[in-house]
Amino acid sequence: MYLAKIYVTYKQSILDPQGEVIKSALHRLDYQTVERVNQGKYFEIMFAADNESAAAAEVKAFTEALLINHNTETYRFELAEV
Amino acid sequence: MYLAKIYVTYKQSILDPQGEVIKSALHRLDYQTVERVNQGKYFEIMFAADNESAAAAEVKAFTEALLINHNTETYRFELAEV
Repeated sequence: MYLAKIYVTYKQSILDPQGEVIKSALHRLDYQTVERVNQGKYFEIMFAADNESAAAAEVKAFTEALLINHNTETYRFELAEV
Repeated sequence: MYLAKIYVTYKQSILDPQGEVIKSALHRLDYQTVERVNQGKYFEIMFAADNESAAAAEVKAFTEALLINHNTETYRFELAEV
């Protein structure tokens, strides 16, 4: 059994309106030292696979099939056998 | 300057409806080996601080002030000087 931790964020070129909203809210709460905020999605997915390389291929497949918007988002993941 | 990576997830006892929706969608796409899906929020926040312990205290403060719902969510973070 494998646990994939998947981090989905906007591509560099894409404006992150939610991040801007959070930054200005933090400034209003007096956290003036905050310079940049990016918000993304985080997934923890438990699944069965024969081995690590098969698991990595499976994560890429289902992430690209369902979890990200290819036009605006990018992702990275960590994999651990559990 | 510090970069905080903050992972916000539901507490164990809380039902994750979005996670259930994604799991059934993955099953419909034939990823039958998927057993559990949890979706959370992921933040990358760049900010200034005097040192690592001040930075950690600041992350706890602004995360608990704005980024999580204390009733249903928990968080962990990683900190790096950049």
